[in-house]
Amino acid sequence: MPEFRAGSPEQVAYLDELMEAGLLAATGVHGLYARGRIFEHVRLRFDALVSRTAAPESPEPLCFPPVVPREQLETSGYLGSFPHLAGTVFAFEGDEKQAAAQHDLASRHEDWSGYQTMSEMVLTPAACYPLYPAIAARGPLPEGGLTLDTGDAYVFRREPSNDPARMQIFHMREIVRIADAETVVEWRLGWRARAEELLRGLGLELELDIANDPFFGRAGRMMAASQRDQALKFEILVDITDPEPTAIASFNYHQDHFSGLYGIETADGGVAHTACLGFGHERIVLALLNTHGLDVAAWPGEVRSLLWGPEE
Amino acid sequence: MPEFRAGSPEQVAYLDELMEAGLLAATGVHGLYARGRIFEHVRLRFDALVSRTAAPESPEPLCFPPVVPREQLETSGYLGSFPHLAGTVFAFEGDEKQAAAQHDLASRHEDWSGYQTMSEMVLTPAACYPLYPAIAARGPLPEGGLTLDTGDAYVFRREPSNDPARMQIFHMREIVRIADAETVVEWRLGWRARAEELLRGLGLELELDIANDPFFGRAGRMMAASQRDQALKFEILVDITDPEPTAIASFNYHQDHFSGLYGIETADGGVAHTACLGFGHERIVLALLNTHGLDVAAWPGEVRSLLWGPEE
Repeated sequence: MPEFRAGSPEQVAYLDELMEAGLLAATGVHGLYARGRIFEHVRLRFDALVSRTAAPESPEPLCFPPVVPREQLETSGYLGSFPHLAGTVFAFEGDEKQAAAQHDLASRHEDWSGYQTMSEMVLTPAACYPLYPAIAARGPLPEGGLTLDTGDAYVFRREPSNDPARMQIFHMREIVRIADAETVVEWRLGWRARAEELLRGLGLELELDIANDPFFGRAGRMMAASQRDQALKFEILVDITDPEPTAIASFNYHQDHFSGLYGIETADGGVAHTACLGFGHERIVLALLNTHGLDVAAWPGEVRSLLWGPEE
Repeated sequence: MPEFRAGSPEQVAYLDELMEAGLLAATGVHGLYARGRIFEHVRLRFDALVSRTAAPESPEPLCFPPVVPREQLETSGYLGSFPHLAGTVFAFEGDEKQAAAQHDLASRHEDWSGYQTMSEMVLTPAACYPLYPAIAARGPLPEGGLTLDTGDAYVFRREPSNDPARMQIFHMREIVRIADAETVVEWRLGWRARAEELLRGLGLELELDIANDPFFGRAGRMMAASQRDQALKFEILVDITDPEPTAIASFNYHQDHFSGLYGIETADGGVAHTACLGFGHERIVLALLNTHGLDVAAWPGEVRSLLWGPEE
């Protein structure tokens, strides 16, 4: 079993409260929940608010499922940085006799992993990852580059925990800019301000920070330090429950990492750069419920009107 | 590799057409596509139409992610019937040295499956499966039973093909009734008529049929015959592309299968029965595009107004 990240007493109490109120329901696996009516409704209203906020730049939706080609994970370098977070899809390829043996073991909840073979698919590690090879396949970028939208996408992170803010599979909505370096850097700064305004408008108390990803192992600590030094990643954090603030949105500048891997060129043949911003939907809903209370009808009028429109 | 189901020339030509028009985009894996702006827009408008159609009975949304506990797959009997369609989630649990070895193999696209261990999660095989243990955990049903709604859920089927109507992961919206046998049977008939009306309203030419699932192996042929004889499953089919019609919606009566497995009782202590109806979102979009053409703006006014409302 992977390391279990035990939630703080406050985090566990918040999870219990959410389950009692029917906002989330347990499945028996840590970090895997069903979303109840109100939770899902708020989540979709927030998603619609992101759509309205992004509308002026008309990002192109390109919506990938929760599994993507294994080859992309192998090529992206993700397994060097985050081997502990990746999930791979295995499947059965045997005959009837093997199927019967597998079924017998599984029915007794014994080990049937020997009958499963690695498929050509993995769980989607980040919403924007599959966009880059898809855009590279189109040839050089159009003049001015591209702005893309992953839509309401699922991503997988192998991090079992009973902190409700740490789910093993959750929604991430990403907007992605692919263009020359200057355009991309400016775009990321603009969106950081716009996202901050959007989230403050929802009554959340934010902190902004330069961030680093949870790279694996000793070599990973160096990668994290370098990412931090170069300020490649910003995060917006909220105090959902003690002890530490939780990132609910992030702004990543990948420089030419993805365009180099897949060969994405600007219209004039230069090296493309890429940046993305991501909203963690479930965490934002958790932050809203914690800030304004579990009774959504009693939320402040200005928050309700931002999410539901003035008529409701 | 699992059996590859080669599409007919018509199916492959339709897939090419969809890709050229940007409705779908290839990922390099058969049956795994990105959905472009128009495809996803139509899909979400259809999902909203299902919500409006179901609204009079106020189904309770209970939204599960694309992965669910492995234990449920083991308990449900799915591996006896459909071992070839299931997907399991594996992950890395090793140390830094093993992570480096895994990464080296993966970077060269060699076999790194030996570093992956079976996790406690599997890909969701059907949208309604995780509902039954969740409802059982609540205790006896309320008076009159329950009607539930999976929302816009992903399901996984290991069926690589270049027929666009056969995807390996796709959306299934299910409405589920859990109550006494008589109520459930009547409910299923009512919804069959309502779904038929809804889909005919969208200009689709439908066939109704008693159906059977693609059970595995020789024993499976008997299961399929029995399912057919008892008329446990109805399907609505459409001719998307030659040669055979494709099921776009189905209506399953499970009798007491799931309630027996998990122990779901009616309010008066009787045995609960269950039934579900499912809409296959991607197939419905494919059927609409094939019937009315790839230019959505030129679709018949009554179809557009059903999907987008009269104002657009």
